[in-house]
Amino acid sequence: MTQQNCNADDSRLERGRRALAEIDGEAGEKVVAALADIAPDFATYLLEFPFGDIYCRPGLDLRAREIATIAALTALGNAAPQLKVHIAAGLNVGLTRDEITEIIMQMAVYAGFPAALNGLFAAKEVFAPQSAAESGA
Amino acid sequence: MTQQNCNADDSRLERGRRALAEIDGEAGEKVVAALADIAPDFATYLLEFPFGDIYCRPGLDLRAREIATIAALTALGNAAPQLKVHIAAGLNVGLTRDEITEIIMQMAVYAGFPAALNGLFAAKEVFAPQSAAESGA
Amino acid sequence: MTQQNCNADDSRLERGRRALAEIDGEAGEKVVAALADIAPDFATYLLEFPFGDIYCRPGLDLRAREIATIAALTALGNAAPQLKVHIAAGLNVGLTRDEITEIIMQMAVYAGFPAALNGLFAAKEVFAPQSAAESGA
Amino acid sequence: MTQQNCNADDSRLERGRRALAEIDGEAGEKVVAALADIAPDFATYLLEFPFGDIYCRPGLDLRAREIATIAALTALGNAAPQLKVHIAAGLNVGLTRDEITEIIMQMAVYAGFPAALNGLFAAKEVFAPQSAAESGA
Amino acid sequence: MTQQNCNADDSRLERGRRALAEIDGEAGEKVVAALADIAPDFATYLLEFPFGDIYCRPGLDLRAREIATIAALTALGNAAPQLKVHIAAGLNVGLTRDEITEIIMQMAVYAGFPAALNGLFAAKEVFAPQSAAESGA
Amino acid sequence: MTQQNCNADDSRLERGRRALAEIDGEAGEKVVAALADIAPDFATYLLEFPFGDIYCRPGLDLRAREIATIAALTALGNAAPQLKVHIAAGLNVGLTRDEITEIIMQMAVYAGFPAALNGLFAAKEVFAPQSAAESGA
Repeated sequence: MTQQNCNADDSRLERGRRALAEIDGEAGEKVVAALADIAPDFATYLLEFPFGDIYCRPGLDLRAREIATIAALTALGNAAPQLKVHIAAGLNVGLTRDEITEIIMQMAVYAGFPAALNGLFAAKEVFAPQSAAESGA
Repeated sequence: MTQQNCNADDSRLERGRRALAEIDGEAGEKVVAALADIAPDFATYLLEFPFGDIYCRPGLDLRAREIATIAALTALGNAAPQLKVHIAAGLNVGLTRDEITEIIMQMAVYAGFPAALNGLFAAKEVFAPQSAAESGA
Repeated sequence: MTQQNCNADDSRLERGRRALAEIDGEAGEKVVAALADIAPDFATYLLEFPFGDIYCRPGLDLRAREIATIAALTALGNAAPQLKVHIAAGLNVGLTRDEITEIIMQMAVYAGFPAALNGLFAAKEVFAPQSAAESGA
Repeated sequence: MTQQNCNADDSRLERGRRALAEIDGEAGEKVVAALADIAPDFATYLLEFPFGDIYCRPGLDLRAREIATIAALTALGNAAPQLKVHIAAGLNVGLTRDEITEIIMQMAVYAGFPAALNGLFAAKEVFAPQSAAESGA
Repeated sequence: MTQQNCNADDSRLERGRRALAEIDGEAGEKVVAALADIAPDFATYLLEFPFGDIYCRPGLDLRAREIATIAALTALGNAAPQLKVHIAAGLNVGLTRDEITEIIMQMAVYAGFPAALNGLFAAKEVFAPQSAAESGA
Repeated sequence: MTQQNCNADDSRLERGRRALAEIDGEAGEKVVAALADIAPDFATYLLEFPFGDIYCRPGLDLRAREIATIAALTALGNAAPQLKVHIAAGLNVGLTRDEITEIIMQMAVYAGFPAALNGLFAAKEVFAPQSAAESGA
């Protein structure tokens, strides 16, 4: 999946807002909304730099970018909410559940078994409601 | 690039030895050799589990696996020698320099600018001699 | 705010107890109480070394010390309960909500956006009941 | 306590399964079960490498191995569920509650007071039901 | 010291360039130069986001911002080059050597004695040439 | 090995000084000396809290304490100088080289292969000169 919503003519904020919507979906919008009453400027930075600047760069497709992010957040092991958002984002940009599971399992090599286990259990939570949704529930 | 050197009929050790050679090249063999007089069994585990087991799994190609590893080691920021080995490994399995640079830059978002800067300077070191070699020096 | 409750003539334990009360308030006393049945000696060390020794040193005022602590705990990202205690402590020693929010936002640069986001959401929790209290609720 | 359940003639998986049962008890089996629907191969790796390979090595007894694991997980501070499993495992292989408390307290020196505090509160949770059980409740 | 070089009418890049010069001095320019042949866009982001956006925000003076950064980089313990740059930056924006030493010592409480020791030895290196220069050597 | 040099009648500083000498030997004294011109009070804290307080506690022998410290510093992976001091300390309090190697290898499970590899190479450096000394060189 390419960064189709990234238009160099748009402002960074506008570009970031569309990239966030494409990648993180509703979960990203919830984060932005949650910042409104404590640090609205931080929501702007979040849209502008990670999404408007980095994710919109053409040199790497979104699939590769989400592989990198899921790997890093699993390895760091101290950002469970963001890992879940990006596991969902991985599905949004075309990674399969099995591919996401492979990425997380591989982190046992680089960050230890506990980091990988906690990553897998995060994935299980993210995958679960979707399974329900897919089955019509 | 697929895991062409991974044969389910081989022992994990044999499979791992070939996967290590394919992915990490000479740098991987140096690590194994350096372990010989202090912890030879650990060299065996390194060949068997990360390379014989994980990298040989069919669900994710080596390009994707190296994206994940470069991202994680950049983000963790405490394993410079291994990061350099895997930046070289990334080139071995088909990532371009620009793609590797993109992955590392993206880590500024998830692990901060210092982690990304140190990753970029590691990449610069890895890329340098190769540039020299390519120019015939 | 200076370390007015630190008296060199007092024992480290006594000095630490008063410094803890001044800085962390009720939250600090709860931590000490929670240690009573598992590791009472650790409560003593906690009062003596961080509070009796370090926070009572004259070379840096409590405002600066809490800036440092809030920054470090946000960046480490693996000690949410202690971060909340020190966000409240920051308010106790004279930092404003906006200043605390600035410190945490800045950590996006050094530890990544997830660490800053989780720090901001911790601040939101700490600020919330106080808002309620201030409004008379 | 020695690794009495480790038999070199068994497969790594079989050896690991018995070592896991001996060390982690029911908690270990729950982890394996929880992986069944998301990453069953990872359960196999977990049994084979950490338990079948590492914990079954003769050079260090299980008591020493659990001291090392409890220390590391307390210091890392980002794997609370696994720390709790290994605090229980420490009791299983003969560490006393006081010894486990000493190990965790010592981590204040190497990873800071928050890491040690969170480790002590994890221990308190693990010790609690057992106290209840011991008293016949 | 206030952010006197931050002018809202300038571009983020221009503002960031001046803020970097004011805060990090020559060391900051060296980092930017070192990025020129590997990731020039990252130099732009570094000037724009941390310096043009964050350090130029009016809600916290540069002295407080450097306290936060020195604390965080000491605690993280995996970014020695950046810690040294910011110890020098601390001196540039008005922190005394003794204040910087206090901040780093305090990190023993939150990230352990090794992190504080390595921070103090980094400070010793930064302070050393300046001492020499001041004495006319 | 028990804490034979710890006498409750001595001051914490005196007790710590003797414990440091017993455990870390010359390397510990070098650290204290290196702090003299930058943060002499921190040398006092280092002697008093980790050594005078923690290592002198009777509930865990020095062998067990060094297992915990070597494990934690290997897993954290960001304090190579201190890890080397404590690998030497492990030998001082009666751990064998093989036992130290086992502890470090085990950390591959909890903190990943790079952390374990870097720990093993640190051990190799510490073991090397001693080997030379033992052979009369």
